[in-house]
Amino acid sequence: MTTKAKIGVLGASGYTGSELVRLLLNHPRVEITLLTADRKAGQNMRDVFGQFAPFNLPQLVAIDGIDWKAAGLDLIFCALPHATTQKVIKALLADVPAMKIVDLSADFRLTDAAAYAKWYGHEHHAPELQPRAVYGLVEVYRDKIKQAQLVANPGCYTSCAQLPLLPLIRAKAIDLDEIVVDAKSGMTGAGRSAKEEMLFSEVSEGFHAYGVGKHRHMAELDQEFSKAAGRDVTVTFTPHLVPMNRGILSTIYVRGVSGKTPEDLHAILSDAYANEQFVHVLPFGQTPQTRHVRGSNMTFIGVAKDRIPGRAIVISVLDNLVKGASGQAVQNMNLLLGYPEATGLEQVALFP
Amino acid sequence: MTTKAKIGVLGASGYTGSELVRLLLNHPRVEITLLTADRKAGQNMRDVFGQFAPFNLPQLVAIDGIDWKAAGLDLIFCALPHATTQKVIKALLADVPAMKIVDLSADFRLTDAAAYAKWYGHEHHAPELQPRAVYGLVEVYRDKIKQAQLVANPGCYTSCAQLPLLPLIRAKAIDLDEIVVDAKSGMTGAGRSAKEEMLFSEVSEGFHAYGVGKHRHMAELDQEFSKAAGRDVTVTFTPHLVPMNRGILSTIYVRGVSGKTPEDLHAILSDAYANEQFVHVLPFGQTPQTRHVRGSNMTFIGVAKDRIPGRAIVISVLDNLVKGASGQAVQNMNLLLGYPEATGLEQVALFP
Amino acid sequence: MTTKAKIGVLGASGYTGSELVRLLLNHPRVEITLLTADRKAGQNMRDVFGQFAPFNLPQLVAIDGIDWKAAGLDLIFCALPHATTQKVIKALLADVPAMKIVDLSADFRLTDAAAYAKWYGHEHHAPELQPRAVYGLVEVYRDKIKQAQLVANPGCYTSCAQLPLLPLIRAKAIDLDEIVVDAKSGMTGAGRSAKEEMLFSEVSEGFHAYGVGKHRHMAELDQEFSKAAGRDVTVTFTPHLVPMNRGILSTIYVRGVSGKTPEDLHAILSDAYANEQFVHVLPFGQTPQTRHVRGSNMTFIGVAKDRIPGRAIVISVLDNLVKGASGQAVQNMNLLLGYPEATGLEQVALFP
Amino acid sequence: MTTKAKIGVLGASGYTGSELVRLLLNHPRVEITLLTADRKAGQNMRDVFGQFAPFNLPQLVAIDGIDWKAAGLDLIFCALPHATTQKVIKALLADVPAMKIVDLSADFRLTDAAAYAKWYGHEHHAPELQPRAVYGLVEVYRDKIKQAQLVANPGCYTSCAQLPLLPLIRAKAIDLDEIVVDAKSGMTGAGRSAKEEMLFSEVSEGFHAYGVGKHRHMAELDQEFSKAAGRDVTVTFTPHLVPMNRGILSTIYVRGVSGKTPEDLHAILSDAYANEQFVHVLPFGQTPQTRHVRGSNMTFIGVAKDRIPGRAIVISVLDNLVKGASGQAVQNMNLLLGYPEATGLEQVALFP
Repeated sequence: MTTKAKIGVLGASGYTGSELVRLLLNHPRVEITLLTADRKAGQNMRDVFGQFAPFNLPQLVAIDGIDWKAAGLDLIFCALPHATTQKVIKALLADVPAMKIVDLSADFRLTDAAAYAKWYGHEHHAPELQPRAVYGLVEVYRDKIKQAQLVANPGCYTSCAQLPLLPLIRAKAIDLDEIVVDAKSGMTGAGRSAKEEMLFSEVSEGFHAYGVGKHRHMAELDQEFSKAAGRDVTVTFTPHLVPMNRGILSTIYVRGVSGKTPEDLHAILSDAYANEQFVHVLPFGQTPQTRHVRGSNMTFIGVAKDRIPGRAIVISVLDNLVKGASGQAVQNMNLLLGYPEATGLEQVALFP
Repeated sequence: MTTKAKIGVLGASGYTGSELVRLLLNHPRVEITLLTADRKAGQNMRDVFGQFAPFNLPQLVAIDGIDWKAAGLDLIFCALPHATTQKVIKALLADVPAMKIVDLSADFRLTDAAAYAKWYGHEHHAPELQPRAVYGLVEVYRDKIKQAQLVANPGCYTSCAQLPLLPLIRAKAIDLDEIVVDAKSGMTGAGRSAKEEMLFSEVSEGFHAYGVGKHRHMAELDQEFSKAAGRDVTVTFTPHLVPMNRGILSTIYVRGVSGKTPEDLHAILSDAYANEQFVHVLPFGQTPQTRHVRGSNMTFIGVAKDRIPGRAIVISVLDNLVKGASGQAVQNMNLLLGYPEATGLEQVALFP
Repeated sequence: MTTKAKIGVLGASGYTGSELVRLLLNHPRVEITLLTADRKAGQNMRDVFGQFAPFNLPQLVAIDGIDWKAAGLDLIFCALPHATTQKVIKALLADVPAMKIVDLSADFRLTDAAAYAKWYGHEHHAPELQPRAVYGLVEVYRDKIKQAQLVANPGCYTSCAQLPLLPLIRAKAIDLDEIVVDAKSGMTGAGRSAKEEMLFSEVSEGFHAYGVGKHRHMAELDQEFSKAAGRDVTVTFTPHLVPMNRGILSTIYVRGVSGKTPEDLHAILSDAYANEQFVHVLPFGQTPQTRHVRGSNMTFIGVAKDRIPGRAIVISVLDNLVKGASGQAVQNMNLLLGYPEATGLEQVALFP
Repeated sequence: MTTKAKIGVLGASGYTGSELVRLLLNHPRVEITLLTADRKAGQNMRDVFGQFAPFNLPQLVAIDGIDWKAAGLDLIFCALPHATTQKVIKALLADVPAMKIVDLSADFRLTDAAAYAKWYGHEHHAPELQPRAVYGLVEVYRDKIKQAQLVANPGCYTSCAQLPLLPLIRAKAIDLDEIVVDAKSGMTGAGRSAKEEMLFSEVSEGFHAYGVGKHRHMAELDQEFSKAAGRDVTVTFTPHLVPMNRGILSTIYVRGVSGKTPEDLHAILSDAYANEQFVHVLPFGQTPQTRHVRGSNMTFIGVAKDRIPGRAIVISVLDNLVKGASGQAVQNMNLLLGYPEATGLEQVALFP
């Protein structure tokens, strides 16, 4: 029997935390040895998430009391609120400088400290760590991640928009000034904190947009799209809430340039992802549904022709808690620990 | 007691039919004296829709056996499938030439017979009636409707897109070549026929686009937008299905021209609808939710600024079965019968 | 034009409060002149419930500052949390002794102060008012309510269980020691407070029981069933949560005594409600669905034969916010103000 | 690498069929080499269920053309409609007499041909095979199944009721004449055929009972409960539909006999399942939620005290497509093929 890596999950009482636990329980080469949840410290995971009733898992503890050296962890997932994350990671790296970390918050995604301060409303608490962080979109930064110690796991909306758009931008195939991303997300993307607007009765049987013109994920899109384009790129991005638990669908409106047809755009995407296990491009003209990736680490992408010549409609879907968060994080962990990238992530989507 | 108008509903076993019955039962100046449903002829309305159990309603009959003259109706709602509608209306007008009709199908919406044939796949069966039909978007054609005999009630998607866009187009305030309408609809818009893709388990907990690049409602949008603009206008339109029963939300991306700002667009819409009872424009920057118009005849419209200068995001919502179908139809009926326009339509939305 | 009664709603920012506003806006003989919401004082109703955007309603105020005499109200609905209610009603009756009140909380439902203390965990703050309160199940206490000043509106679960069971108990038709009420409720029954277990993602796509063996509504059932039976009656009652907004369905298992068959039980219920506008008994063997009473003030009751001889399954449904709360309350208001009982309550259910 | 068993799935275009494919794709010791779907023959699995788009699976074929001998299968899952199943299994056993079969239909569950004829409305087409069939509730018939060739996989409702009740019946701990099973199921239990009453708009936002007093699963309950009791046992059973995809919850009302308290009943169940991997008994007083077993092969059971002395409320949950159908079937396959029983079934539930 191979030795299993010892894994800690900080913030295990939220949805990305519990999703990490779900995936790690089925991962053959890791064991969960630390789970934290400050407000629920002392409870068992089964009290916080009933689905874990049959499993033996470490009791939830508060972060403050942890002796990081004694914990003997091989890797830590950090699923904490932003800002808190910076302080925690700073402290634990002070104790265990070589600790491998996959951070699921937004705290180390933005390389520009000014952009961080603008979108998050305060100065970064650990700017000195930022240069060591690698942006964890595996399909783009795989080689860098393998060498990294601290990985900034991408946002759910941004993963869903980047995977279809980056190859088109890099290929200079679309008009960079006319990109519209109309995104729709299930409710788990909003987390587990008790807010009136997230109650069942406020959400079910209805649909609405939010953060119109000003959602924080825009900063991440700007950074990555501009990097890919070699110039500033600003897209129109509108998030909406769907009365469902999981899934993001992005309807992306683009115009081909240099004579690129929708079919050409489809070919670019098909080529880009031909060898990727977790990105699947559908046949031209077919478009994907969120339910078909539910619970899996897959992204599905479809390209269809608009009736306006030259314009295409690109639609991408992923499960915001898996490829949009915890599945992507496990994919990053696999790279950091030298495991085959897909280990523990082969589950087929749960539909219906 | 005022005499009540005698009303018939053709196609009472579908959702727009039952919604008509719901509204008419609460309408003080009409009585329902005829209900048809070919495949369910002989049944009672309570067998087909349990909510009518406490009400006395005419038994469902087949259309074929009806003696239109003897029926003595003042007005007929036609909620039949397209194509069928043309034949039925032709036949009944042959018997009762002055019959007032509000048709909820697509059959008399397109003034151009060629456009009809292109989008619906067959020649129109009653082209001679088309010139007598008035397009029934009350806020636009109110005066014509009052003089009409045959009203073509608009489609749900198209009402939701036209109400916010027509004033902007008429005011020459937006770029006509860059309009994107990303529309999301609840499931009742798809009707009540038993199809696998409409089963609960196929629809709930998921989200997808359909008819990408080629939905029939485009024909209606083209006609009305071009008419308003005085030139051909073709918009990008993508419909999606939301796992909810009622409601359409259209996220509309526009670019102001001639220096028009998003605030200017908001002002144009506010002015246009200042005196309309069933269209409400929210304060600038606020955007609406479908749940807040559920069951009511209201359309809510919001305008927000995009972060890209000059671009605005306009969001409109309505209940596809009310303002998008049967409520609009009753509004048309009120005009045809000389009643106050809002009679029977004052119900407040049902939320939660 | 008849003068309209001036109505106040205390606790307008909760679901029963907003439902009162919805119903009262369509009621021809009242006007809303006072709305309170302590934590949202200063806001407008449209900020708290988007569906009221098109309506002019009084601004929300805090209860503390109100001058009850100056307010000149004809009737007050009290939709406040329990315990708070007792103090508020005591204070306002001190100022305006003749004020008519319909209280939607549990505070004046239990005639036995000891039972109140046992189930609610504290002594009643206004026991001297209790004898003046009339239990507001209209179909049972209609005559008393007409003479009353303070009406204790029944609970949603208890209305749904009492309407089918009381006639059977009074007729001595069923075994009083073997009644099982398996009840299922939509989420609005839990109110609008932000609690983790009421989040969309915790509730949708799942089903569970709660309060097993110890739900507070049992006290109310015990009181009313024992009164009807003339002896102590204790039923088994288990509430469950359904991932839907509105509706309660009670599946009630009973055994006929004295040779009473399921058909006899059906006949007893049919007779009992033959002249009631808001209780409808379905034909024998048919059972009701919650969706068919959604948004209406109706209760539907069905009786079916169990395959075990002598046993029957009685199923009742109502909308917990209407007949189970605010609709019932308006029905009580109509009696208190001398209006026809059904005024403002004729809306047909909204399905789908 | 171990050789993998070759598996066929008959009826792969329904929900239990696709769930088998999901589970088998993640099973390390099998390969899917045959998939049938008569009405969708010639299509690919990805056309019928979008979630399989990334996988290579055999094309769907019609049953009629199959050469069973040439197919070289080690085991067949039969997920066909009842009656059809009998004929198909008869024919294939004629060709390959030793073929191992797990049948998910009801066709071989009832040992009494008369009971089958009564509940299913026609004589059995293969009564000579019935004696060879073993009832596939693994926790009860594990040893027999290991020796079997033809396993009749139990129904979803019946598994959910049998697992909590059988140990109590065998222990003579409860009154056999007063068992009430109030069952609630998600929509996938009704299958994938296009019926009006299963449309999203007919099902969402509502709740209802069906088959009251006469559901076919009663036959299976009668058989197994009577067998366990050594006398005839007839329970009251009422199924309901919950607006969710997956999950069954049974609320079971029982009365302890011979002085057995609810705590005693809990102890009996805890003992009975102490060593079972797929049945988990919660601590006394806790009751389970369907969402916590979603997508997993687990059954959770809770026992609570009723306030009526001597009575207990037992609640069980499972995922109707997994432990209630395809997961149970794979568990049976593992026994038939000599694999460890839990192989391929270790997935943790997907919540939220």
